[in-house]
Amino acid sequence: MTEYPTMNGAESVVRSLHGAGVSVCFANPGTSEMQFVDALDRTGLMRCVLGLFEGVVTGAADGYARMAGVPAVTLLHLAPGLSNASANMHNARKARSPMLNLVGDHAVRHRGYDAPLTSDVAGAAAPFSDWVKTATSPDTFARDAMEALGAAMARPNRVATLIAPADIGWDEGGVVAPPPPPPDFAPLDEHALERAAGMLDAETVLLVGGRVLEQPDAVALLHGIADKTGARVLAPTSNRRCDRGAGRAGIDKVPYPIDMALETLAPFKRAVLIETVPPVAFFAYPGKPSLLLPASCEVMTLAGLDGDGPAAIAALAERVRASKLIAPVELPPSPAAGAITPATIAAAIAHALPDNAIVVDESISGGRDIWRATRAAAPHAWISLTGGAIGDGIPMALGAAVACPDRPVVSLQADGSAMYTIQALWSQAREQANVTTVIFANRTYEILKKELFAVGANPGRSALDMLDLDRPHLDFVSLARGMGVPARRIEDAAELQRAIADAAHEPGPYLIEAMM
Amino acid sequence: MTEYPTMNGAESVVRSLHGAGVSVCFANPGTSEMQFVDALDRTGLMRCVLGLFEGVVTGAADGYARMAGVPAVTLLHLAPGLSNASANMHNARKARSPMLNLVGDHAVRHRGYDAPLTSDVAGAAAPFSDWVKTATSPDTFARDAMEALGAAMARPNRVATLIAPADIGWDEGGVVAPPPPPPDFAPLDEHALERAAGMLDAETVLLVGGRVLEQPDAVALLHGIADKTGARVLAPTSNRRCDRGAGRAGIDKVPYPIDMALETLAPFKRAVLIETVPPVAFFAYPGKPSLLLPASCEVMTLAGLDGDGPAAIAALAERVRASKLIAPVELPPSPAAGAITPATIAAAIAHALPDNAIVVDESISGGRDIWRATRAAAPHAWISLTGGAIGDGIPMALGAAVACPDRPVVSLQADGSAMYTIQALWSQAREQANVTTVIFANRTYEILKKELFAVGANPGRSALDMLDLDRPHLDFVSLARGMGVPARRIEDAAELQRAIADAAHEPGPYLIEAMM
Repeated sequence: MTEYPTMNGAESVVRSLHGAGVSVCFANPGTSEMQFVDALDRTGLMRCVLGLFEGVVTGAADGYARMAGVPAVTLLHLAPGLSNASANMHNARKARSPMLNLVGDHAVRHRGYDAPLTSDVAGAAAPFSDWVKTATSPDTFARDAMEALGAAMARPNRVATLIAPADIGWDEGGVVAPPPPPPDFAPLDEHALERAAGMLDAETVLLVGGRVLEQPDAVALLHGIADKTGARVLAPTSNRRCDRGAGRAGIDKVPYPIDMALETLAPFKRAVLIETVPPVAFFAYPGKPSLLLPASCEVMTLAGLDGDGPAAIAALAERVRASKLIAPVELPPSPAAGAITPATIAAAIAHALPDNAIVVDESISGGRDIWRATRAAAPHAWISLTGGAIGDGIPMALGAAVACPDRPVVSLQADGSAMYTIQALWSQAREQANVTTVIFANRTYEILKKELFAVGANPGRSALDMLDLDRPHLDFVSLARGMGVPARRIEDAAELQRAIADAAHEPGPYLIEAMM
Repeated sequence: MTEYPTMNGAESVVRSLHGAGVSVCFANPGTSEMQFVDALDRTGLMRCVLGLFEGVVTGAADGYARMAGVPAVTLLHLAPGLSNASANMHNARKARSPMLNLVGDHAVRHRGYDAPLTSDVAGAAAPFSDWVKTATSPDTFARDAMEALGAAMARPNRVATLIAPADIGWDEGGVVAPPPPPPDFAPLDEHALERAAGMLDAETVLLVGGRVLEQPDAVALLHGIADKTGARVLAPTSNRRCDRGAGRAGIDKVPYPIDMALETLAPFKRAVLIETVPPVAFFAYPGKPSLLLPASCEVMTLAGLDGDGPAAIAALAERVRASKLIAPVELPPSPAAGAITPATIAAAIAHALPDNAIVVDESISGGRDIWRATRAAAPHAWISLTGGAIGDGIPMALGAAVACPDRPVVSLQADGSAMYTIQALWSQAREQANVTTVIFANRTYEILKKELFAVGANPGRSALDMLDLDRPHLDFVSLARGMGVPARRIEDAAELQRAIADAAHEPGPYLIEAMM
């Protein structure tokens, strides 16, 4: 604590974060964050990645954390910058991804005036953060930052937002603070273990999420348990990350469409939850339930969100004398020359995925067949949209590439969703991120059309105008080139497979507009 | 109230809004707003304009309201959609522009579950709204909407956000509600008038904002008062709208840079405020004050934000026997062939502006000379960024063009700021909005570099990487074409003048990337 000469609050935060293992800063700074820009510059301790829009910054931080297991720090500019960042904070929060946001505010003495950028930063942070604090003094600022990091790294991981009034950062008196203590798991409940072991039969579903899905051995053990007992294994519809592919045990997910979800879960009288909560419908629909398990289903938690799911699974396997099981699966046939459809794009991706790839999935309706098709693809990590706030994919791909520079990233991106944070392509080009983006160009908010038809509407021109993206056409090749990313358009499924494989093996970003 | 058969809540809101004069809906809807999409479609009462990102939606609504004088309605999707919209709600709020947001939420019965899109919508709305309410029943839903409209149209105008749980919109029982009563101005205070009249001399500044700047006759009368008494007339740095140009009285503004602002206001011992508040520094700086008027300055309000500024000015003019004064001004010379600089771009725009244009100003540092240069340009309305949340310009230009289809819009746009809501170009193309966008391509966050130098930093590579936009180059011609907007790049000031004049006379959108 005494090794540094006098420093300002901002420098004490940068040094403390670095000391605690935070080595990347995703930033879209403004005037009130210039002391951080200066401290990052002078210390040279972190890799700084600029986003041209704040949703890029938090989406990238989310993708980074999902792959690195530790958070980056973000740098955001007052309440409007924070609000631009919030949709992807929401997604990170729903993913239970660790995130640490540093948001500048006016100097304390300036906040009482109605300056143009004055607004309620803490109020804006609250709905999208699990932890919010405003720094009050340079000498406690780094300690606040370590508290924020501790909150982000707690079990389950959380979104922590520390608000930094400009003068707290620029005033001298900063004191470097020690890293937060490592978090503990909630202990395994032996009674719950016994109860779960006694519940397993063909009318029981094991619902597993969180860290379990990142450990293929734990999933394989689950399948052994299922094989031994007749129980079924399912994962939630959306997850922070899943490590899967050839030689690993796969897992089925609760389907997104409400009727399919209800049908999938209807047979079960008992549910055992491991690092997840009871599944809920994405939206409410007239005459349909919000909770997806049957009302009469007996639900018990073996390991909560704060528990150690893989350890619980190991204990359960021991109890029922099950061992790992990896069912053999095969790739679908390569697509023949022909139209790009949900089925052929899925087959193309399954064959094109390079070894050890990171798949970022924001493919929405066009990607419905990919999860199943890629079960036997080369081993990969799969990270996907979790909170339903579209515009997470291109930034997450950037962040994943920063976290894992030696792994190819394949970013599966619906066209409508792509436009929310399209600016992330520029950061991919600047960072020479190894990302192959595949745009699923169906030129519509297809999923909304389905929803509109589902509520029985008979849409006319005016409704379709709010759901179609075909007037004018979005030209993603031009958009990508405009931000320094080479790109091409492809209309044939077989060519698509070759193009993805080629691009994924080349360094740097590339974009393929797949015309569906 | 009895003329309609049974209808759902959403339809009652659409019909009531239309009955109250709201005829445009800027929308980025999702599943929870499908009942509005359906009601807008079936009734055919409103022009619906789709934005590909929510910041486009609220920025367009702001530009629309500034030109139309009445709000459009926006349609937004839960808390993440609302947060994406919030930066331009912030700008509208600081402009005191009337805005009416309709934000979908989960059905009431679904809100208790932690669904992927569940979050605190009302909490997210509060920091960026002056008025927030959540609808509770189909039969009172339209009444709530009329209350929201009344709040938006109050004096001063406000940002009103009505949260619409999905079932309140889709359930039957909607009842059309009557329009809100028109707002009143606060009455003129005769004592204040007498006091103001007695204060006017060469050490007095008349600070005027709000509606006054939209009425050239009121500004001319102010100059008559100034001429008669020796007082100085100044407008705030940022304003909702100013109607100006050849044949109209111009007005100087308080400069943005803190040192220039302090120097401009230093001479004054007295200040009379009309539809504005005491000017505040944009940011706090070490050793500099937050309030820009001298601490010893006597400040009095002749007409508050809720007052009738033009009426107060007329009364004041009568009291001091002043009449309208329009000082003759001349255009700067047309730029010669040569580099595009802040001075030559200002001259080019001053000459190129067509008659009755709407100028949208988010030119930031590159546009510093334009306000003065365009004093004698063809008569025009000027709308600009007010809340410091960059990314308002391209959407506002869209909204202004929707409000005034017969007027050419010239959108002056800094490159860094353009990237926050670049998606608005697509809506400009779709709506065939008559907008000529001029990108001020200096390939840097120039204003932040100035701020960093101002705090005495000596930035290195890492700091500059967070402020420079030149690696890779942003190619705005490609970006525009990718969204259906024709575009060209220009490097010569004389050619720039011709290009702006040509594009502004052609229908539909066009983009000019002016290389500075």
